[in-house]
Amino acid sequence: MKITVWNENRHEKTNPVVAEIYPEGIHGTIAAFLEDAGHQVQTATLDEPEHGLTNTVLQETDVLVWWGHVAHDEVDDTAVEKVVQRVHDGMGLIVLHSGHFSKVFKKLMGTSCDLKWREADEKERVWVVDPTHPITEGLGEYIELEKEEMYGEHFDIPTPDELVFVSWFAGGEVFRSGATFKRGRGKIFYFRPGHETYPTYHQKDIQQVIKNAANWAANNNTPKPVRGNAEPLEDLSR
Amino acid sequence: MKITVWNENRHEKTNPVVAEIYPEGIHGTIAAFLEDAGHQVQTATLDEPEHGLTNTVLQETDVLVWWGHVAHDEVDDTAVEKVVQRVHDGMGLIVLHSGHFSKVFKKLMGTSCDLKWREADEKERVWVVDPTHPITEGLGEYIELEKEEMYGEHFDIPTPDELVFVSWFAGGEVFRSGATFKRGRGKIFYFRPGHETYPTYHQKDIQQVIKNAANWAANNNTPKPVRGNAEPLEDLSR
Amino acid sequence: MKITVWNENRHEKTNPVVAEIYPEGIHGTIAAFLEDAGHQVQTATLDEPEHGLTNTVLQETDVLVWWGHVAHDEVDDTAVEKVVQRVHDGMGLIVLHSGHFSKVFKKLMGTSCDLKWREADEKERVWVVDPTHPITEGLGEYIELEKEEMYGEHFDIPTPDELVFVSWFAGGEVFRSGATFKRGRGKIFYFRPGHETYPTYHQKDIQQVIKNAANWAANNNTPKPVRGNAEPLEDLSR
Amino acid sequence: MKITVWNENRHEKTNPVVAEIYPEGIHGTIAAFLEDAGHQVQTATLDEPEHGLTNTVLQETDVLVWWGHVAHDEVDDTAVEKVVQRVHDGMGLIVLHSGHFSKVFKKLMGTSCDLKWREADEKERVWVVDPTHPITEGLGEYIELEKEEMYGEHFDIPTPDELVFVSWFAGGEVFRSGATFKRGRGKIFYFRPGHETYPTYHQKDIQQVIKNAANWAANNNTPKPVRGNAEPLEDLSR
Repeated sequence: MKITVWNENRHEKTNPVVAEIYPEGIHGTIAAFLEDAGHQVQTATLDEPEHGLTNTVLQETDVLVWWGHVAHDEVDDTAVEKVVQRVHDGMGLIVLHSGHFSKVFKKLMGTSCDLKWREADEKERVWVVDPTHPITEGLGEYIELEKEEMYGEHFDIPTPDELVFVSWFAGGEVFRSGATFKRGRGKIFYFRPGHETYPTYHQKDIQQVIKNAANWAANNNTPKPVRGNAEPLEDLSR
Repeated sequence: MKITVWNENRHEKTNPVVAEIYPEGIHGTIAAFLEDAGHQVQTATLDEPEHGLTNTVLQETDVLVWWGHVAHDEVDDTAVEKVVQRVHDGMGLIVLHSGHFSKVFKKLMGTSCDLKWREADEKERVWVVDPTHPITEGLGEYIELEKEEMYGEHFDIPTPDELVFVSWFAGGEVFRSGATFKRGRGKIFYFRPGHETYPTYHQKDIQQVIKNAANWAANNNTPKPVRGNAEPLEDLSR
Repeated sequence: MKITVWNENRHEKTNPVVAEIYPEGIHGTIAAFLEDAGHQVQTATLDEPEHGLTNTVLQETDVLVWWGHVAHDEVDDTAVEKVVQRVHDGMGLIVLHSGHFSKVFKKLMGTSCDLKWREADEKERVWVVDPTHPITEGLGEYIELEKEEMYGEHFDIPTPDELVFVSWFAGGEVFRSGATFKRGRGKIFYFRPGHETYPTYHQKDIQQVIKNAANWAANNNTPKPVRGNAEPLEDLSR
Repeated sequence: MKITVWNENRHEKTNPVVAEIYPEGIHGTIAAFLEDAGHQVQTATLDEPEHGLTNTVLQETDVLVWWGHVAHDEVDDTAVEKVVQRVHDGMGLIVLHSGHFSKVFKKLMGTSCDLKWREADEKERVWVVDPTHPITEGLGEYIELEKEEMYGEHFDIPTPDELVFVSWFAGGEVFRSGATFKRGRGKIFYFRPGHETYPTYHQKDIQQVIKNAANWAANNNTPKPVRGNAEPLEDLSR
């Protein structure tokens, strides 16, 4: 499977804490464990030409991973349109953490995608609420993150097609942390954890979720819908 | 309840067949039976200033009904934004027939909303598949329309929150004809029937569905979500 | 609307703590605030003949509220069958707290309905995750219960039709606390709070939820499905 | 993957038409194409001891396929309990055609599973309504069956987790023909076609659906929920 990991890659350049945790960038860390899983992985970042998302790159991408935060507005609308179109055509999409506010995710959801948040080094427990889902393969009953940014309800998304994880935070909030959506022929997975100042993407069970999600999101030859003006089954004048 | 019926109102001006079926416009016919049901109803049309959708009108609207077809592109993007925002804030929305391709509906869905279609005077049966739903109150097991335009799958919408009706067409197609969606605090109902050259909105059971949908879509004081930076439950340092 | 509140009514007879909180029984407290809301309410309890659930009572009940805990096994299978049948025929059902393990609920769900639990006087926050739902009318963004029994995931229920509330517990767990299900023509709402040793059902916002749920669950004349051998639309030999 | 194909195997013994279409039994035909797909397949039938569903067989089965019709009542309740328990524990289940009325399916659904039907050699079109679903891999936009028994709405099942197929019938009905459900750790797929007097299971695209469904239904090491009395995260007295 061909995976492209897209990252805004700004915090890594300006915040030494982030640079130390992710010396190769968040995209580099994610790409590495996906490669170890046997996939063909490339990365793309905001400051590359066309944000690294050329037509060729997108056409060859089975699953796109997206991390963004402070520079959502700098993502060009044309690139957004192309990504959305590719999802409709069957490309899988994994949206991570603050990517909830990306243009791509908001456009695919049709809602504000707003939420409640707090940076307070809080303990998070990501509970599995759907123990049939392939995205949970190999996990225990929850993932514990010693310190993370809090995201709380109400999370303004459409009703997920499947609710896979719900997070608990020490400060009193809950959050629908893992949710799937279908748009056109494309499958989308939103996964909450991953604030840039914590080593979340180095944690094995978090990596497991993203690897599972990539397998789940890839579209293997499902039907291509036929739309537009149609011929009837047979003579309707009978 | 305050209802606004919006109509493109173009076919009525150019096609004598439509003008004869709907001398007061499609909006006039729909407004009349909603008024008879005891609601406070006003209409708005494309060619009015601001398409009749001023801030005041939208603020006072509990449920908006939308019919459009040939002039979707003429609807101003600012108006679209305002309608979408009001849905997020709790206004109900009923999208009828070719409104599936309206800017408002596509923006709220995040998909192409494309489908298959045919104009061939076909018999349609709109089957109830959710006999618990308040939108089906007072109906029999199906609604029969002697002649209608065909809409067929694949209908490119997100998985509906609730699937209420599925249509059968004589020419060999099926269609998810009645579907609900939630976006923000707003409830949306898409209802398929209503091609302009047939007297569909004069049929009693079709009117019943639209009246039921208005009651269902109105938001009666549900919680207003609090979002943004949040205080924790208590001292997290413990 | 005619509501029947069913209660096992055993803790009230044997535990002085419960008797002091609910001198009229849990059913008495619930019946009182539903009556104040203008409904016609009667109660029924385990130790009455036929558990108080005669054919006449069930036929005349629009919405049944169910609380049980230590004596699920004493509920007669015939009564269970009759309740399930009435739900299929359109009676609303509100299942409270430990009623998750009642024969009626398990039979309607098709799962074990098992969960995690702890009695430790924990703070609970019941968060609204669906701010469009009529069951949340009049609430704030969450309900806080100073002390409650903990229920935790995984809660072994089918995917709810609608997830309305998710609870946070001080001890580290989350729980899908308010969930709706459709079975036949009947609507079911499960609501978590209400351990017998806490004054939960005296709290105003909890009462509001149960009142809202009764309005939501009542079936107002939706279609009665026709099943069995059927005649075709027309001559199939053509 | 280990698959067990269960068949009532009665029509094959009494009806020469069926015996001619399925000389090895419906189970034999289905087992053969699943074996060709590389799976380890065994069959089991009603008249074997324990209906062929011994503890050992069930424990070793990843996915169970079920076809039954005239003898649902002869299936022993103990066997039903064991199958249901194995589904809860993670075994996949594919229920075919008249299996909608099997004890196993009804117990897992919590509804009557009743429907409308007609035997009239009708054309059926099984339309794909979810072109993201792995169960549709390799198909076109619909499957056409020249002659089948009609099944029509209302089909009394809970709201499916996913609606994959909707059927059109020449006589005027529609039917939710392919639907998924989750129960415990188990995944269930109901698939409508397969009346015993037609060669439906010899058709390639029908075989493709059943092969896809087996891959989809197998549970590959998802979490085993922990339930019962639980320890808190930490000292709650703080």
